[in-house]
Amino acid sequence: MLNIAVIGGTGPQGRGLAYRMALAGHSVTIGSRDATRATEKAREIAEKIGSDASLHGADNLSAAQEADIVVLAIPWDGHAGFVESLAPALRGKTVISCVNPLAFDEHGPYGLTLQESAAEEAQRLAPDAKVVGSFHHVAALSLWKTPEMLEHEDVLVCGDDADAKNLVIELAAVVTGKPGVDAGALRLARQLEPLTAVLINVNKKYKTRSGVAITGVEGKL
Amino acid sequence: MLNIAVIGGTGPQGRGLAYRMALAGHSVTIGSRDATRATEKAREIAEKIGSDASLHGADNLSAAQEADIVVLAIPWDGHAGFVESLAPALRGKTVISCVNPLAFDEHGPYGLTLQESAAEEAQRLAPDAKVVGSFHHVAALSLWKTPEMLEHEDVLVCGDDADAKNLVIELAAVVTGKPGVDAGALRLARQLEPLTAVLINVNKKYKTRSGVAITGVEGKL
Repeated sequence: MLNIAVIGGTGPQGRGLAYRMALAGHSVTIGSRDATRATEKAREIAEKIGSDASLHGADNLSAAQEADIVVLAIPWDGHAGFVESLAPALRGKTVISCVNPLAFDEHGPYGLTLQESAAEEAQRLAPDAKVVGSFHHVAALSLWKTPEMLEHEDVLVCGDDADAKNLVIELAAVVTGKPGVDAGALRLARQLEPLTAVLINVNKKYKTRSGVAITGVEGKL
Repeated sequence: MLNIAVIGGTGPQGRGLAYRMALAGHSVTIGSRDATRATEKAREIAEKIGSDASLHGADNLSAAQEADIVVLAIPWDGHAGFVESLAPALRGKTVISCVNPLAFDEHGPYGLTLQESAAEEAQRLAPDAKVVGSFHHVAALSLWKTPEMLEHEDVLVCGDDADAKNLVIELAAVVTGKPGVDAGALRLARQLEPLTAVLINVNKKYKTRSGVAITGVEGKL
């Protein structure tokens, strides 16, 4: 059982990941700016799971401090300042960034052109954390709507710390029922993060909730 | 039957796409700097297909001039100058860019951080062409090794000209047996192109030829 904080856990992606992780038996603390809202959200998720769930709410800093693994499910807007404020609490911990630096205009969503990905920025601002980029692509509603595994999708995982990356590769099974796919070093987050813009376009065009699968890795994960 | 030129058709990706397109009954001209090499490559592919194949070789400019659809299967290195020199021959045509602006170092491949994708650069330098970004992700050897369709993979297609994009979406069936997936406007090529770096990492890690599939679009293409 892992002790996980989901920072930004009141948003749809954070809520969905918290639900899946708690459902798999992990102890999850929802973090929010507002501890009361976090506690309410934790209760909502716990009720969906039933009596066995270990779910709590706390302000973001307390949630991060108490956890062994910290999920950053926060907006790109204000990302740098927020990570900086959290950095002391992230020291030595596996930090999972699922942040998507996207922009939207009348032609739809697109990935921002950045010198570094959100995950790399988090690593730079919290240098003693072990940052892993993952969980960008599974639709928030697919996480939340049913407890069913999403075996046809893959969770792509990138990172520079091998142990932290392997931990997240295993943790991906809470969503897909199978380990995640090692996508390479942390800098590959530059590719993983904005791919979400493609999926949002596909969702709109085909009226669906799309996801990503990697072919050719069946039986090799 | 389409009249297609594959510029850079002597490279592995170009050869693979030329093979699949000719196999599907299209008339394909291999373009190369060296017309003799292009003709040899065309003969190699034609022999693999058999007597029905319509395959020819020519220098790049002649190949582009004669075709209705031009596939740019060229390296990122020297891309801008090359497209500029070809621009008059691309006027009014559907131009398919499958160029991947990647870099490699001791940590493996990664996507270059660019202000515009290769496809957008081609569109800027050949403004009267209808540039579509596609065919970045199917492994060259998967295209070439067998004539079997790759139904489990998807061809992602982005572009700003709706007709040109739809044409390429249909053309994708030469590889997968089904239409491609509309990934959005041409700028989404910024996401599609460097995703190839992730696949190369996956290939190395899992000793495979990986590809991309989009989930949630089954039956909607």
